[in-house]
Amino acid sequence: MPALLDPARAPFLSELLRAVPSGLVQRVVSSSTQPEPRIAGLGSLEHASELEISFIVHPKYLEHLTHTRACAVIVLPEIEEMLAQTIPEPLFTRIVCKHPYLLYARISQWFDWARRPAYEPGIHPSAIVDPTAIISSSALIGPHAVIGARCVVGAMSQIGAGCFLDEDVEIGASSVLYPRVTLYYGVKVGDRAIIHSGVVLGADGFGFAPDPSLSKGAWGKIPQLGVVLIGHDVEIGANTTIDRGALDNTVIGDGVKIDNQVMIGHNCKIGDHTAIAACVGIAGSTMVGSRCTIGGMAGISGHLVIGDDVHISGGTGIIASIDQPGRYTGVFPFAEHKEWQRNAAVVMQLSGLRKRVRALERDES
Amino acid sequence: MPALLDPARAPFLSELLRAVPSGLVQRVVSSSTQPEPRIAGLGSLEHASELEISFIVHPKYLEHLTHTRACAVIVLPEIEEMLAQTIPEPLFTRIVCKHPYLLYARISQWFDWARRPAYEPGIHPSAIVDPTAIISSSALIGPHAVIGARCVVGAMSQIGAGCFLDEDVEIGASSVLYPRVTLYYGVKVGDRAIIHSGVVLGADGFGFAPDPSLSKGAWGKIPQLGVVLIGHDVEIGANTTIDRGALDNTVIGDGVKIDNQVMIGHNCKIGDHTAIAACVGIAGSTMVGSRCTIGGMAGISGHLVIGDDVHISGGTGIIASIDQPGRYTGVFPFAEHKEWQRNAAVVMQLSGLRKRVRALERDES
Amino acid sequence: MPALLDPARAPFLSELLRAVPSGLVQRVVSSSTQPEPRIAGLGSLEHASELEISFIVHPKYLEHLTHTRACAVIVLPEIEEMLAQTIPEPLFTRIVCKHPYLLYARISQWFDWARRPAYEPGIHPSAIVDPTAIISSSALIGPHAVIGARCVVGAMSQIGAGCFLDEDVEIGASSVLYPRVTLYYGVKVGDRAIIHSGVVLGADGFGFAPDPSLSKGAWGKIPQLGVVLIGHDVEIGANTTIDRGALDNTVIGDGVKIDNQVMIGHNCKIGDHTAIAACVGIAGSTMVGSRCTIGGMAGISGHLVIGDDVHISGGTGIIASIDQPGRYTGVFPFAEHKEWQRNAAVVMQLSGLRKRVRALERDES
Repeated sequence: MPALLDPARAPFLSELLRAVPSGLVQRVVSSSTQPEPRIAGLGSLEHASELEISFIVHPKYLEHLTHTRACAVIVLPEIEEMLAQTIPEPLFTRIVCKHPYLLYARISQWFDWARRPAYEPGIHPSAIVDPTAIISSSALIGPHAVIGARCVVGAMSQIGAGCFLDEDVEIGASSVLYPRVTLYYGVKVGDRAIIHSGVVLGADGFGFAPDPSLSKGAWGKIPQLGVVLIGHDVEIGANTTIDRGALDNTVIGDGVKIDNQVMIGHNCKIGDHTAIAACVGIAGSTMVGSRCTIGGMAGISGHLVIGDDVHISGGTGIIASIDQPGRYTGVFPFAEHKEWQRNAAVVMQLSGLRKRVRALERDES
Repeated sequence: MPALLDPARAPFLSELLRAVPSGLVQRVVSSSTQPEPRIAGLGSLEHASELEISFIVHPKYLEHLTHTRACAVIVLPEIEEMLAQTIPEPLFTRIVCKHPYLLYARISQWFDWARRPAYEPGIHPSAIVDPTAIISSSALIGPHAVIGARCVVGAMSQIGAGCFLDEDVEIGASSVLYPRVTLYYGVKVGDRAIIHSGVVLGADGFGFAPDPSLSKGAWGKIPQLGVVLIGHDVEIGANTTIDRGALDNTVIGDGVKIDNQVMIGHNCKIGDHTAIAACVGIAGSTMVGSRCTIGGMAGISGHLVIGDDVHISGGTGIIASIDQPGRYTGVFPFAEHKEWQRNAAVVMQLSGLRKRVRALERDES
Repeated sequence: MPALLDPARAPFLSELLRAVPSGLVQRVVSSSTQPEPRIAGLGSLEHASELEISFIVHPKYLEHLTHTRACAVIVLPEIEEMLAQTIPEPLFTRIVCKHPYLLYARISQWFDWARRPAYEPGIHPSAIVDPTAIISSSALIGPHAVIGARCVVGAMSQIGAGCFLDEDVEIGASSVLYPRVTLYYGVKVGDRAIIHSGVVLGADGFGFAPDPSLSKGAWGKIPQLGVVLIGHDVEIGANTTIDRGALDNTVIGDGVKIDNQVMIGHNCKIGDHTAIAACVGIAGSTMVGSRCTIGGMAGISGHLVIGDDVHISGGTGIIASIDQPGRYTGVFPFAEHKEWQRNAAVVMQLSGLRKRVRALERDES
């Protein structure tokens, strides 16, 4: 990666560490050759330049330390102990920290802000804003955005180019909508949200009733009259869709993190701090607890209740409620194709195979 | 949910019931305390207010009836019989109906129209409309929409903000395209369609031929020269994609209902009144019959024929044609992770296990 | 399909064949009735008109030849031999070719260009282009597109309506972005790319670190500081998303073909000429080799290494690295629902069943 900051603007390491929460860094073991480096960015152990900081979260990556060009590396205390014995004169500065991934995240956040262009609030002249909408004077409305009647956009919030906010949409403070996000009428989003491009919140849930008065097999539409309510500190990935409720609302709790191309059906409730990886589908009216993690491409049927602290493996289909915390999995193990064919053929005869084993057991006894 | 209508504008129950098809309501058993309530909206039994109507579709929800605040409840005849014996003096008005879900749908439709802002046809000044396009004078073209040469938009149809209609696109009457829908050249949509935000109709199908003249392993593009034809009364959910045909067209029948993030490949045909839940993928050239239902995240391979009245469970992979009506399933049952590991390990040895059972059977005989 | 070209503008067959690479056609066996037809388009054997050319790639479709109306058909040498014996006086002109699918692709490409409207470069007046962006004078920028600071758009490239290019985006020559594509800051796309509507390149990867300083279970965001690099000759299907890297970049090789609604996580590398069918998900940091094919709805876990020439069947979940070329599969075979239920119940007891077989074997010996 190219350096994030011009080296002349890069902070000294000690300045950078003053910007992270005190207590996170246990101590700093300075390099003898370059005790106070400037830090222009971050990099992986393999690819960091001499102007960058790196980190190591697991002893299995120790060998990379011998090759890294990084001028400073965040290390776990146990790794520091090993290094102190083998390389007492460090070639790079070692920053000892019990939570190296968290410290890396904080330093990364610092650079992310430092590299951003200056924030200039205002409404782009090509945007179409209804006169009844209330837009904070510190908000930014991008080109070609459309803001409907009675919308509210809070302080420091950014509405990207080409976003569409239908009537009565509310966005809290310090939230970012990337370009081309659609919010249907009445959707509410809390503070500090990050909503990526292509997201659609509040489209109609999939609700139909068989209507024989129309024609054989025809479906009558059930209007979807609820809305979508998004809590604070929620991130929603690109092209994800969350449908509006039929009668009640669809509710996403505080701190929920949702990856790309996730689909959440009408009337679902997602508990606080639950993380949902890409391509997950959650069918209508299902309730997911707090602090759950749902692996990529997992699917959850409708009208289920998933408790708190449940961890679902990627690709798993959940077709019954789960009330105990723990990890749950259901994936057909892959194999070389011909081997799969042989075993899959038996899967379709398992019930018979069990009977044959029972018969053998009976005969034996 | 907040009341849909101002109570002062809310209809009396008898007015509301006159708006639904005659014959749908069997009879009305009025509440002794409030024989002619005003209805300001709908709600679930648990959350309805005193100004709202609710419904009960299954006896298992009977206990909610003792707590509901709804002033009127749609009930099945068999539930009414039970209630008539236990609560002859009803606290809420009971509307007896053999199809409570359908009646709820019809009343919901009434409120959906009543709550909508007045419809004002016209072309927004920021829209870019080709002079050769034919736009009905009763149609509505939203801000920043782009309408290409020779397009046709029928009476009362709405094209949302930021929609893009390439050349020769045709939209029938009374259809709604929500914002940010893309229709590639030549796509045709029938009457009364509802197409949600982010939908892409008519992008190129995935067609390539190995082209060794380019380089080892290279793919040559096969242009996709067919179009997408959408019937009448079709609904298509947010961020769904339906690809154009390679030589023939991709065809979606009348009354088909498609949920969000569905992918339908080139040259597919979907029969009338088939319903496809979210995240389903149907590979190219597959034909699905009429009145089928396809559960969420199911996948269907290409070049298959699925007959009429086939019901595919969510998450199922269909890798062969189906000519008999019925329900089909193929999902690895989920379990606590360690239990799954133990069983999945045996799945990969099933062929061997069957041989061992055979050997035991031989030895025994 | 309606004829692609007005018959008066349609080329003679001999003209058309001069436009494809020499050597591809072995010989032409002319129809006695119409030795030099005009070709107005292409069609399948079943649906081609008398003005169209068709092709047959497999003897199993031979019966269609007796009914086709096509005036010329591309045939394999072995099919020509069969025809020469049975129908020496051909009703249609037979074009003998060892790679009929490739020849069809080339002729299809010829018609695709012939039918396209004339290309008119220029920047639409409604587009918003930053003054520091460098736009080739032969490029086309569509209505309502937004081009950020320091972007570069190469010769003959087309940026569709409503596309958004954030700062420092670079597009090579002869690339096409269909309407409503979003490229986040710093994304680079090579030459001759085709990127379909709704694609989002460079949204943030899904990176979070548990941050107990915020609240119980809370996630702290890890800024995603890498970019997405797309090679030459890449096609990306509608509504596909490819996330930017966290520290390193996400890299898509030359000639890679990606279908609709694919999700590629941060830091992935995809090797040259790999083809990825619709709805595939590839989790972060996974490396996929060259010339692989990945079937629709397959999922690949994160941090894996998939070698060259690996073919993954649709719907398969890959949860371990693969270093040998070959075909890999893992799909639960579908069945009529009750049969599935019987067999799936045994899947959850397989570990026990194996123990019972072992016990029987022990007892026997």
